[in-house]
Amino acid sequence: MTTPSAARVVADERLARIALSRLTEPGDTRMAALVSRHGAVWVHAQLAAEFDPAGMRSDVAARLGSMDPQRDLATAERLGIRFVIPGDAEWPRPIDDLLVAPPVQERGGPPLGLWVKGPLRLDQVGRAVAVVGSRSATTYGADVASELGAGLARAGHTVVSGAAFGIDQAAHRGALAVDGPTMAVLACGVDRAYPLAHKTLLDHLAGTGAVVSELAPGCSPTRLRFLARNRLIAALTRGTVVVEAALRSGALNTANWASRLNRPLMGVPGPITSAPSQGVHQLIRSGAAMLVTAADEVLEVVGGAGEYLLEPKRGADGARDRLTQRQRQVLDAVPVERAASAPSIARTAAIALLDVQASLLKLQTKGLVEPVGHGWRLAAAARSSSRE
Amino acid sequence: MTTPSAARVVADERLARIALSRLTEPGDTRMAALVSRHGAVWVHAQLAAEFDPAGMRSDVAARLGSMDPQRDLATAERLGIRFVIPGDAEWPRPIDDLLVAPPVQERGGPPLGLWVKGPLRLDQVGRAVAVVGSRSATTYGADVASELGAGLARAGHTVVSGAAFGIDQAAHRGALAVDGPTMAVLACGVDRAYPLAHKTLLDHLAGTGAVVSELAPGCSPTRLRFLARNRLIAALTRGTVVVEAALRSGALNTANWASRLNRPLMGVPGPITSAPSQGVHQLIRSGAAMLVTAADEVLEVVGGAGEYLLEPKRGADGARDRLTQRQRQVLDAVPVERAASAPSIARTAAIALLDVQASLLKLQTKGLVEPVGHGWRLAAAARSSSRE
Repeated sequence: MTTPSAARVVADERLARIALSRLTEPGDTRMAALVSRHGAVWVHAQLAAEFDPAGMRSDVAARLGSMDPQRDLATAERLGIRFVIPGDAEWPRPIDDLLVAPPVQERGGPPLGLWVKGPLRLDQVGRAVAVVGSRSATTYGADVASELGAGLARAGHTVVSGAAFGIDQAAHRGALAVDGPTMAVLACGVDRAYPLAHKTLLDHLAGTGAVVSELAPGCSPTRLRFLARNRLIAALTRGTVVVEAALRSGALNTANWASRLNRPLMGVPGPITSAPSQGVHQLIRSGAAMLVTAADEVLEVVGGAGEYLLEPKRGADGARDRLTQRQRQVLDAVPVERAASAPSIARTAAIALLDVQASLLKLQTKGLVEPVGHGWRLAAAARSSSRE
Repeated sequence: MTTPSAARVVADERLARIALSRLTEPGDTRMAALVSRHGAVWVHAQLAAEFDPAGMRSDVAARLGSMDPQRDLATAERLGIRFVIPGDAEWPRPIDDLLVAPPVQERGGPPLGLWVKGPLRLDQVGRAVAVVGSRSATTYGADVASELGAGLARAGHTVVSGAAFGIDQAAHRGALAVDGPTMAVLACGVDRAYPLAHKTLLDHLAGTGAVVSELAPGCSPTRLRFLARNRLIAALTRGTVVVEAALRSGALNTANWASRLNRPLMGVPGPITSAPSQGVHQLIRSGAAMLVTAADEVLEVVGGAGEYLLEPKRGADGARDRLTQRQRQVLDAVPVERAASAPSIARTAAIALLDVQASLLKLQTKGLVEPVGHGWRLAAAARSSSRE
């Protein structure tokens, strides 16, 4: 720590926000409210004025005095990192919804600013989708996240996640695999590789997409910062998809934020025997999340009105679908196992015998029934589909 | 076929119902409505009166004339099969809901009667639950169905299914494994073993539970009869659980009947990559079915009001849950990877240094933090749970 000096007067909104963000933890609702009402310059001036030379009164003022946001900014710029604040063209407007969303454990509010590394502009994430989930993902979950990431990115939606192990990583990689846009939001400085094993991934993201954080370069991750980070993932996106989340997974915190922000929340189901799917199943059971099974179902939810309308899924047309009404009635009356005589089939179908005989011959040419002795029975193809 | 003789006068409601059930296919809504309004004796008399000796006018009357319901009943009794009709003490009242449920493809209505083999009484199935699904089940689906069957039967609920391969079989076996009540509803006579490979299962069910059908002994299964049978499974039960169902599975027909009967419909999710789960996922997506993951969740739905109230699932309490509020705040401020000094942690947590130091020592005794040089870092136990 440097020796406290007289608090600098910071006249610039950007520099004031940098200093204030270093003073408080992310998601400090009081600070967010103050800055939103009075601007960072005013708040900074108020807090800095409390400085007293004996160091008895205000640690806050002392800390403000020891900061050099100008230098922070210069250092960041050298690292290719920019600091985006409200009013900048690049400021992502949807994130301001955090001003009105109810806080979680007194944490909330928009960030004082966002440190960004990478060519992807934050104001272009209006169609972004969050894909989040457990670090301890199964291969099933990772495959699904990767497929979703690829499908969403291919449709032009930015895939937003947290660059963690498991689902996060798989979602980013899915988007990268199709050269699609993807963005990581971190709980530490964007110059830090956390987890270290994801250094290459993060470099790649910073090279083609964006790495974002409300924490200044150099800051370390803490649990509280992960929780605060989750609100940004929810707020930066049009909707959040939870792929796998155990009952106490942090992904459920992101899900909670999506709900508080009135953003659509979606969940991918999995085996009920799989612990990492339990949290997702509970979100769906409680009605908080909609069940989704593919990227196109996510697009239907987050797309513009009428942009992605899905036909309800149905099985492939069977031979049965291409029959006339009468042929179907006759087919339905042919016993599943034994053969039956045409008159018996006619009675079961309640159709005249001559018509039944004509239909049976048609059905035979289609390979659906076969003659046996004096009767008819279902051919193997029809048998397998007739019982359910 | 015997030679048509003068139509017998059938004065007995039970015998008239047997004759009429042989005349029409199950689920004939016109017949069900007529019999429900006028009684089977009257309907039988009207149809039999159309008999003309030249056989020119009415095949119906001729067929009625050739029937011998008295003999049918005697034969059935010798096989240990009873015929239950409305008015009998054993008649399952919930099935009468079929009178008002909208028909599917002109099929519907209550059965004219139910042939029953086995000690389980139909009037004791008020708390029954249907567990249905694909014949081509996965091992996952079969395991789940079996677990559900066992769980429901253990709680005293009769498990109702169709004795088919796959999910049906697994559900029955689950109930049998705990010596619980279970009932099969067939699309053929209850004296028939269909599928033949399930002869032992059906014998077992008839020995300890019940095998039920609206088709007279000896009747063969047809596709139409399977569809009609499905409405009985839905109507006999308080709710229907679909475990696995491909997009065109017959289990979806049973599901449809449950919805038409205003019975709760539930679905067990599975991997989105598994075709036999697609139909279930669609039921949940459309809002038709509620997602369930265990027998107790089914019981909560089908049980009496307040009988089975579940606590929402939550993960096991971690060490974190047993901390004081202050200790948690301090723990959340300790960096995830590197060590930090106590003053730095105090600033992050916004708590006085003395209190932080006291908390750190407490957290150390709990194995959550450890001293490193002049600082503190998270212990391995806390590290793994702090990032999400």
